[in-house]
Amino acid sequence: MGEIEKQRIARLQKLLGEAGIDYYIVPTADYHNSEYVSDYFKMREFLSGFTGSAGTLVVSAKEAGLWTDGRYFVQAESELAGSGIVLYKQQEENVPTIQEYLGKNVAGGQTVGFDGRVVDAFFGKELEEIFAGKNVTIAYERDIAEALWQDRPARPASKVWVVPEKSCGMGVPEKLAKVREKMTEEGAGHLLLAKLDDIMWLYNIRANDVACNPVALSYTWISQEGAVLFIQPEALTDEVKKHLQENNVACVDYDTITAYLNNCEIAGKVWCSGADISYMLYRLVQSRAELVDKENPTELMKAVKNPVELCHIRECYLKDSAVLTKFLFWMKENAGKVPMDELSVAAKLDGMRAGVPGFLELSFPTISAYQSNAAMAHYSATSEHFSRIEAEGFYLVDSGGQYEDGTTDVTRTIALGAITDEMKLHFTKVACSMLRLADTKFLHGCTGRNLDIVAREPLWACGLDYKHGTGHGIGYILNVHEGPHSLRWQYRPELQETQFEEGMIVSDEPGMYVQDSHGIRTENIVEVVKEDKNGYGQFMGFRHLTYVPIDLDAIDTQYMEPSDIRRLNAYHESVYKKLSPFFEGEALEMLKKATRAV
Amino acid sequence: MGEIEKQRIARLQKLLGEAGIDYYIVPTADYHNSEYVSDYFKMREFLSGFTGSAGTLVVSAKEAGLWTDGRYFVQAESELAGSGIVLYKQQEENVPTIQEYLGKNVAGGQTVGFDGRVVDAFFGKELEEIFAGKNVTIAYERDIAEALWQDRPARPASKVWVVPEKSCGMGVPEKLAKVREKMTEEGAGHLLLAKLDDIMWLYNIRANDVACNPVALSYTWISQEGAVLFIQPEALTDEVKKHLQENNVACVDYDTITAYLNNCEIAGKVWCSGADISYMLYRLVQSRAELVDKENPTELMKAVKNPVELCHIRECYLKDSAVLTKFLFWMKENAGKVPMDELSVAAKLDGMRAGVPGFLELSFPTISAYQSNAAMAHYSATSEHFSRIEAEGFYLVDSGGQYEDGTTDVTRTIALGAITDEMKLHFTKVACSMLRLADTKFLHGCTGRNLDIVAREPLWACGLDYKHGTGHGIGYILNVHEGPHSLRWQYRPELQETQFEEGMIVSDEPGMYVQDSHGIRTENIVEVVKEDKNGYGQFMGFRHLTYVPIDLDAIDTQYMEPSDIRRLNAYHESVYKKLSPFFEGEALEMLKKATRAV
Repeated sequence: MGEIEKQRIARLQKLLGEAGIDYYIVPTADYHNSEYVSDYFKMREFLSGFTGSAGTLVVSAKEAGLWTDGRYFVQAESELAGSGIVLYKQQEENVPTIQEYLGKNVAGGQTVGFDGRVVDAFFGKELEEIFAGKNVTIAYERDIAEALWQDRPARPASKVWVVPEKSCGMGVPEKLAKVREKMTEEGAGHLLLAKLDDIMWLYNIRANDVACNPVALSYTWISQEGAVLFIQPEALTDEVKKHLQENNVACVDYDTITAYLNNCEIAGKVWCSGADISYMLYRLVQSRAELVDKENPTELMKAVKNPVELCHIRECYLKDSAVLTKFLFWMKENAGKVPMDELSVAAKLDGMRAGVPGFLELSFPTISAYQSNAAMAHYSATSEHFSRIEAEGFYLVDSGGQYEDGTTDVTRTIALGAITDEMKLHFTKVACSMLRLADTKFLHGCTGRNLDIVAREPLWACGLDYKHGTGHGIGYILNVHEGPHSLRWQYRPELQETQFEEGMIVSDEPGMYVQDSHGIRTENIVEVVKEDKNGYGQFMGFRHLTYVPIDLDAIDTQYMEPSDIRRLNAYHESVYKKLSPFFEGEALEMLKKATRAV
Repeated sequence: MGEIEKQRIARLQKLLGEAGIDYYIVPTADYHNSEYVSDYFKMREFLSGFTGSAGTLVVSAKEAGLWTDGRYFVQAESELAGSGIVLYKQQEENVPTIQEYLGKNVAGGQTVGFDGRVVDAFFGKELEEIFAGKNVTIAYERDIAEALWQDRPARPASKVWVVPEKSCGMGVPEKLAKVREKMTEEGAGHLLLAKLDDIMWLYNIRANDVACNPVALSYTWISQEGAVLFIQPEALTDEVKKHLQENNVACVDYDTITAYLNNCEIAGKVWCSGADISYMLYRLVQSRAELVDKENPTELMKAVKNPVELCHIRECYLKDSAVLTKFLFWMKENAGKVPMDELSVAAKLDGMRAGVPGFLELSFPTISAYQSNAAMAHYSATSEHFSRIEAEGFYLVDSGGQYEDGTTDVTRTIALGAITDEMKLHFTKVACSMLRLADTKFLHGCTGRNLDIVAREPLWACGLDYKHGTGHGIGYILNVHEGPHSLRWQYRPELQETQFEEGMIVSDEPGMYVQDSHGIRTENIVEVVKEDKNGYGQFMGFRHLTYVPIDLDAIDTQYMEPSDIRRLNAYHESVYKKLSPFFEGEALEMLKKATRAV
């Protein structure tokens, strides 16, 4: 075991010696820092044998080391056995970060290398700082390991499709005009986008090159006069070509981006967000022009959904809510009666969702977690490790779909039988948290840092907390995690905060996790709406998009204020009203019971 | 009327012509940007005749203009009549700011002047930006108007006194060591402080050079080896000289600061906070060394009160709470029975406070506002404009004292007779706001921007708001307004936020203001305390320092959650417990009734 990888590392070390590279970094990333990495880009897995979704390999003549986080310590130890690769357990005491490791080991005159296409500019600039004044060379222009991977999978090149204007609500010319207006404001002659969801949004196209993200591998280069889309030729259909042509977007081969940027005429500054671009392209552009290193202008535009998008999103969330509710009813009915486990019920839910009209794919792999498994952050059942489900305790399911009319995300926790008083307390507080935040009225100008405490306070009051953010933006037929707004409380002066604007959508997902016992999360997606405007300013609020019952079997009203009870009852009344068209007969009766007033 | 000022302006214009200055700015400030300006520094009032506490005069050959804010429009119009000075009403539509006025009117080749000692570096740098590339000279080294003011009052030079170590809890050597540690961290060889309360804190001294602020005009220059205090020689007693000498602080004449900084040896960078220093000194230091332009290191140290200070503060707030409570009882008993007005009752309260052991002076001029007057921000009754008080409606009093053992600040609003349902609603919501915030438990790391919504939410939920911050820090026998922490919600990326630390004290003062009707504010001071520490982190909370009943005659429990009622009753129970030692007989009965459970 591990023999193949041992040989691969040895061959890589030989290549590095020939190339004059002393330390070589292989991260887990594609050229666009996507949340999911397709097989083509799994170079780190190929070299190390470690199959986890996160990890970085560093190879030198004397050592190969793999850095990964707590989710994967057990798996990595087992998969790295025999390879000779040293496991560096991130955030364990006395374990150096990669930056610290390189800072300590790399000597003056040495060279640190990586494929500059799969390392983002942020990390690359960090390395520059670490080695500043140390006479260390950063070699980022070649993928040294490439030659070793003979049977490398094909790079994804799915067919691009056009989002019809009746679905996206705004044409490409209007979007380009808004982008160009922002460029003028910033004094930028050009804009380079590498962030795939921004590019998809801008050109009203979608594809399937990244799991769960309906995007195509692409770049775009925009000036006041023209727009160039770099995309794989085989991804384009005649319809897409026509669409782009009609919108004056020139198509150029994806692989010519470097040559193009090296040779094109550049007038004035280039807007290029260092957080969203590879180190290679960042350096290339930097060598040719003055940079405007700011958040992509498309980021905020994409986040504020237009009325047509919102109309589709509302409908989409109803059908998605209905299917999840049916699944949860099935779970409560059948737990303890039919054999089930975390994987089998996830497969059942995924199958039910696939039957919903307009379904494209999942928006992320379903998190299906029973009892203490739900207490683990990022838990993911695998065929090696999963739990059987019985008629007791809590079951947590966090799931969502990509549809032709929206992207969904929702979490519910349900009691499958007896639960303790502490579990009821936690569940009730989390429900109050979610509903209070959704019900908050606030003045325009508030950011997520102002509002986060509204969700967190019921738990903080008990000396409890959930160690994750309260919410994130969500795309429209796009990535389930989207910026620039969010709900969090920690102060980080370097982070720009974004005000909530009418038409944004955001998740509201407080939780409570007790190690070795249980995990609870209740997640609705809400849209930001305008409330009354008066002498004090423009008041804003949220409106639920998600309508799924909150399990009353786990609610104990003694832990609620009267206003919390009113809020829960009002929510359930609207759940019944919104979902009843999707139910009939006995199921409708179950819905009625599940949404009864308490 | 206005003839004298007309002549003064004309004579100033002549002097400006001789000095080659085209626009001359006279702000309302001393050399230290103090909150209150002593008579010696009232040059703007001398030249213009306008006696308001805020305003800036700009004089050119063709015009003299006075800028002031909404509080003073009526007064300024009347006081400027006949002087020929044009009134610029700040924030009115189409009224330029001073910056806009100068930007538009000052031509290339012209000179803008001011006394660089009374203009802060922030404003000076703004002017530099406005005139960048315009060939405009900024002349800041002479006080041109000085020659006109023959009978100028003497500059204050009150006697300095030493705060005994049993009162301040930390000696000068320890404070200097902490400051020098911070200087080392920032790589600064020297630190220049001009902020008077920071200097008083550092050397454990106090004085009386600024109304309501127990400070002495001074500067200090600190290096790793030594510390120099620039202070008026007549302010020093033998005791103070001995104290400073024992602590290795050299005393130098206040007026030699410029000469000293021009000639002293400077090794390395100079730490000098641009927000807290005059433009003249900023430019001087800038010409001699590289600057570290960051918040004074003393700012945060001073804000975190030590256990000895806290012990005194808690006692001080009790006696101050008792005297205010007695005053409020007297008001409620006597309104409508004995003649009273805003000024007479303020004088009565000030007199009662003066009788409290350890009283030094007021910590700010008492705000005594009846009915609709309380709806005006910064209302201040004057002998020309004040209201009689009857047995109806709301009376608001915001007041505080400087004592030998602390600085207090407290606001209460009381019903003197019949009030409307709307007034009850507003009063009840404000009381809930204040008490909820004081009762909030939060994780260490929170800043005022996280917590502000806890106070504001009960009002926001009704579409209401108060257009001021929720809270500010308070000094210890020092300024009643102190940084660096605060409670506010608006996002201003350029503003550094400060986490709440154990031992900070902060005001909790929500309000509600309805023009032409009523104004409500309920203000307690709270200290930041540690609560439990567990796997989620260090929880923090607040503890009341102020114990004054909240008028139950204006509370309507229908607007409260059960938890709000519990909170109010618990607060009143502790008010009774803490204050009863200060009361006896009939007054004790009144206290019992005022703090009864509802």
